[in-house]
Amino acid sequence: MMNKPEIITSRTNKKIKDASSLLSSRERKKTGLFICEGARLCADAAQNGVEIEQLFITEKAADTYREAFCSLGKAAKQTFFIDESAAEKLSDTASSQNIFCVCRKKNDPRSFESKGFYLLTDNVQSPDNLGALARSSEAFGAAGLIVCSGCDIYSPKALRASMGALLRFPVFVRESCAEAARELKKLGFSVFGSVPDKNALDVRFAEKGEKTALIIGNEGAGISEETKKECAGFVTIPMAGRAESLNAAAAGAVLLWEFTGRNDMYGGFYGKHS
Amino acid sequence: MMNKPEIITSRTNKKIKDASSLLSSRERKKTGLFICEGARLCADAAQNGVEIEQLFITEKAADTYREAFCSLGKAAKQTFFIDESAAEKLSDTASSQNIFCVCRKKNDPRSFESKGFYLLTDNVQSPDNLGALARSSEAFGAAGLIVCSGCDIYSPKALRASMGALLRFPVFVRESCAEAARELKKLGFSVFGSVPDKNALDVRFAEKGEKTALIIGNEGAGISEETKKECAGFVTIPMAGRAESLNAAAAGAVLLWEFTGRNDMYGGFYGKHS
Repeated sequence: MMNKPEIITSRTNKKIKDASSLLSSRERKKTGLFICEGARLCADAAQNGVEIEQLFITEKAADTYREAFCSLGKAAKQTFFIDESAAEKLSDTASSQNIFCVCRKKNDPRSFESKGFYLLTDNVQSPDNLGALARSSEAFGAAGLIVCSGCDIYSPKALRASMGALLRFPVFVRESCAEAARELKKLGFSVFGSVPDKNALDVRFAEKGEKTALIIGNEGAGISEETKKECAGFVTIPMAGRAESLNAAAAGAVLLWEFTGRNDMYGGFYGKHS
Repeated sequence: MMNKPEIITSRTNKKIKDASSLLSSRERKKTGLFICEGARLCADAAQNGVEIEQLFITEKAADTYREAFCSLGKAAKQTFFIDESAAEKLSDTASSQNIFCVCRKKNDPRSFESKGFYLLTDNVQSPDNLGALARSSEAFGAAGLIVCSGCDIYSPKALRASMGALLRFPVFVRESCAEAARELKKLGFSVFGSVPDKNALDVRFAEKGEKTALIIGNEGAGISEETKKECAGFVTIPMAGRAESLNAAAAGAVLLWEFTGRNDMYGGFYGKHS
């Protein structure tokens, strides 16, 4: 039986200040901790082996999200009831569920799978794009996502946009995308870059082998020159009209669909097109 | 030759206040005006027959974006130089280019095309999603986008996320998605709903006729019951893993790709799959 939690009624309380500092990526880097907001995301963390240091929750939220409260209360090392002003200080959303966990960052999965499809992001900056790419990678059965610099995978916005996929799914963090590409190549993977360039290979005709990786570049600058040198080739999504490019998350979804969901995952219904 | 523009050096100036009020959708509704920010977006407006009432620009931006300044100066009924504090008041971005146009909302295109692919959004709320869907619709050669309630197409965030597609591309605004679906059906279009439901028709097997429309629903609630009644059928994107759904913009990109880009636009390379 859990003891009656301590009640925090001040937004200047040290524990609240420490937890809210995790809304900044610098503090997350320094401490190795991050903050999860919302019943669903906190539950995703708990169910996926993420260590939960602290649970902060308003009494009302504990009542509303009773089930989440019980399981998180068991998983967390410490539980605190907080009032709404403290909750506001921890929240990154417009309408908060007033339930927060301070978690320890996960270790990377030990190693890459010996086959499958990997998506790499080379300095993708937008947390919305990163989150959506993680969500699509999971939905289309990729083997994993390799996030190379750019947006922090523990950004509250990215976690939300991923609907928890960043916590559930095999996500690797690397400083250098070129280095990650070399790692994959050593394992026998073919590494392709995606580019908005009519002269690149139409993605429909790309070989969809069982050891393939694809790089999505930065929203403005695309794939870095250093990373491009590691690519076996470049694929593109043909476009009409005056559009010059797609949003990174939209392009990623279509590429994932072509390389995994559409072709292999369901028994390659249409056969290999290449 | 343009006269030397009036210079506004106060953020409380009435013209600045009126223009900045257009950052709110209520004021946009009341006045029939909207505000564009950035050299590229303003140029997109001017090049696509949008009436430009006022151009606001800092002297530095006029120098940096000389070409845009010249053509916008010609297009705009009035031009004002502003200082940086006034620019800050007009800006919706973190790092502004300090160039703004107050524009008159466009009229809807007169009527639907007699064939092609239409994407409908039924109460899509996120400006990022709406913008990305417009961008993907244009990129994949859809005939147009029909925005039914939800996010205002003139939201500064939506305009930015669309990279101007909301201004370039045939976009229709409708109150009721069910009513828009009926309009299309009268013209002989097949109207499908997209749903995250394993029992719906796998999008790969859906008939890709030349008069097809597809509805993307609200991010949380999906397609409304009223709108569902107008659908000839429901398609879905098969998913793996624990993902329950895709981000609306990601799902929209894949569906657009399947219905237009992948199949018809390039001569139906793979033939009809259904």
